[in-house]
Amino acid sequence: MNQTAAPPPIEHQRTVLRDGLRLDSGQLIRPLHVAWRSYGTLNADRSNAILICHALTGDQYVAERHPSTGKPGWWANLVGPGLPVDTDRFFVICANVLGGCMGSSGPREEMTDADGNGLGRPWGTDFPSITIRDMVRAQKMLVDHLGIDRLLAVIGGSMGGMQVLEWAATFPQSVFAAAPIACATHHSAQNIAFHEVGRAAIQSDPDWMGGRYWETGRIPERGLSVARMVAHITYLSEAALTRKFGRELQGGSALTFLEDVFQVQSYLRHQGSTFVRRFDANSYLTITRAMDYFDLATEHGGLAKAFSGTPTRFLVASFSSDWLFPTSESRTLVRALNAAAARVSFIEITTDKGHDAFLLDEPDFHRALGGFVAGAARDLGL
Amino acid sequence: MNQTAAPPPIEHQRTVLRDGLRLDSGQLIRPLHVAWRSYGTLNADRSNAILICHALTGDQYVAERHPSTGKPGWWANLVGPGLPVDTDRFFVICANVLGGCMGSSGPREEMTDADGNGLGRPWGTDFPSITIRDMVRAQKMLVDHLGIDRLLAVIGGSMGGMQVLEWAATFPQSVFAAAPIACATHHSAQNIAFHEVGRAAIQSDPDWMGGRYWETGRIPERGLSVARMVAHITYLSEAALTRKFGRELQGGSALTFLEDVFQVQSYLRHQGSTFVRRFDANSYLTITRAMDYFDLATEHGGLAKAFSGTPTRFLVASFSSDWLFPTSESRTLVRALNAAAARVSFIEITTDKGHDAFLLDEPDFHRALGGFVAGAARDLGL
Repeated sequence: MNQTAAPPPIEHQRTVLRDGLRLDSGQLIRPLHVAWRSYGTLNADRSNAILICHALTGDQYVAERHPSTGKPGWWANLVGPGLPVDTDRFFVICANVLGGCMGSSGPREEMTDADGNGLGRPWGTDFPSITIRDMVRAQKMLVDHLGIDRLLAVIGGSMGGMQVLEWAATFPQSVFAAAPIACATHHSAQNIAFHEVGRAAIQSDPDWMGGRYWETGRIPERGLSVARMVAHITYLSEAALTRKFGRELQGGSALTFLEDVFQVQSYLRHQGSTFVRRFDANSYLTITRAMDYFDLATEHGGLAKAFSGTPTRFLVASFSSDWLFPTSESRTLVRALNAAAARVSFIEITTDKGHDAFLLDEPDFHRALGGFVAGAARDLGL
Repeated sequence: MNQTAAPPPIEHQRTVLRDGLRLDSGQLIRPLHVAWRSYGTLNADRSNAILICHALTGDQYVAERHPSTGKPGWWANLVGPGLPVDTDRFFVICANVLGGCMGSSGPREEMTDADGNGLGRPWGTDFPSITIRDMVRAQKMLVDHLGIDRLLAVIGGSMGGMQVLEWAATFPQSVFAAAPIACATHHSAQNIAFHEVGRAAIQSDPDWMGGRYWETGRIPERGLSVARMVAHITYLSEAALTRKFGRELQGGSALTFLEDVFQVQSYLRHQGSTFVRRFDANSYLTITRAMDYFDLATEHGGLAKAFSGTPTRFLVASFSSDWLFPTSESRTLVRALNAAAARVSFIEITTDKGHDAFLLDEPDFHRALGGFVAGAARDLGL
């Protein structure tokens, strides 16, 4: 049986918003906690702020060592001094999403009643269903709290890109430039299906205990690990998996009929087992559902309406071997932006690295994003 | 906890081969049980026999109602009186693969010692590792036992296609015509990865009990169900999933933030839950590993050597939206057959139904296969 204990709590820097947030579901989260990090300095007229939105399993530690894994920031190759998102020039904010597990209000945090009183137990599965728009509203409250009227840019990939689109559609006057990367205007049936497998794996784990695993001090390690394994496959291309592992055998020897005979097997199991130490299972359920609900057209009465009259400029980027959010989805978005007379650039980066490419060293992508941000700054007189 | 009991045993028609089978691993299975069904009549000179090879979760009930699910045979649209594989003219054999769970030697059957004595418990995970070639050797023993020197045709899709290739490479004089459909000459890294997720899910289920679940009378229902869910996604195309479900909501109502809000979710969970009633978890582990090991080139010292001087004629068929065994894999096979001066036809069927298309009503495919079989019969003077 499972012996892995829940990870020790980490103190995350966070802002407490006393009035709370009314969700799309109608429920109130009060107070609202937003955990966030920033890099660089906000200028006097508060016009140089860039918001980075993270993906499903990302967090606010975009450009610094992660406090629990010790790994570099997840976009440390893109965000930092002298980098395409230049923290010498810009004030870069990254907030843990609503529903996350790194200090923002979410299933792992203490449950509160309608008056904001703590109830002495985690939300767990009683945390309300949330949407991508709810995540963005929480970020907007933080940005307002910081006294920033308009963001120079909002940038994000994958689920982060969904948030970028929601920012532009919901708060167009607050977004000067938007870069939705490796994403889509809705989650596809196949993507919903892969998420459902992950959720079924978590919910099948007896250690999940109907979501009340905090009562035991253990975590549903096996189910969460399987969920991570299947998701991880969708982040890589067939070519990337083949190049990394092909049919290479463990130890390089001949076929021995061992259980884990191929290197790709131990790699995947390792991906699963390291993930469980840093991520909360109920957060995984909550956030994957929010992604599945995402459908910008339905929310805003059509894609054309979502962006009608938008003042925002866009950079849409896709990666040729991304089969989770294929280029065709970005083209649909670009057509809608064109139809709305938006200012939009589109690049498809040729790479065989799959969806993961948005996190990797892709010079063409980094140059394009750097140019896009620099151009926006120039046009704002920064 | 899991309350599903193991399904009641079914008596399958089978042949007991006393001498047993020596496996690629070196182990001996004695006696060897081969469960099989046949349709039509074997002619006097035993020249009209066609062997159908089934896929991972298929079985010998290719053209008749399944004894446990009550569903029609899995290829009842292709095999039967007057159909492309015409049981009015041909003697059609289909055997449960070695390692399966429908009566052939496999993890669910009684374990035997080296002398063939029953040990009063199932093999479970003590069943040896097997290869696709072992499956084919078991079928060859059955065919020999029936006094058939040469099969008019060997036909199969997916893992069935792997067996067809192995038949042609290992027993070329016994195969007049071969139709490998929707398959490849080796299992790709991505396919191994998806299998590994399924195996991890089964092995993570506490009811699996290290493979000894027969001791409890229960089955590792949750793990096997998750394994089936992820596999099922790979059998369908994105387009097929979207056409079937799109983002359709349960009950057709507005977004309600229920757990299973999308139809695709309940469909997948249903696929998982029905599967566990008919399939054995340890068989799933054994057979998926055999597929992962499959690499015809390595086994035979190169693809050219595998088919060098082959007397067999081939029909290779692929389906345009199959991303599990994409057309590019079939082209690799065709090039190797061309290089070996084999007689080979190749068709790619245009369909948006994904890998599953090989089981569905695809008129172009059925016409091509019917013509191929009829041509082979004509050239043998049948």
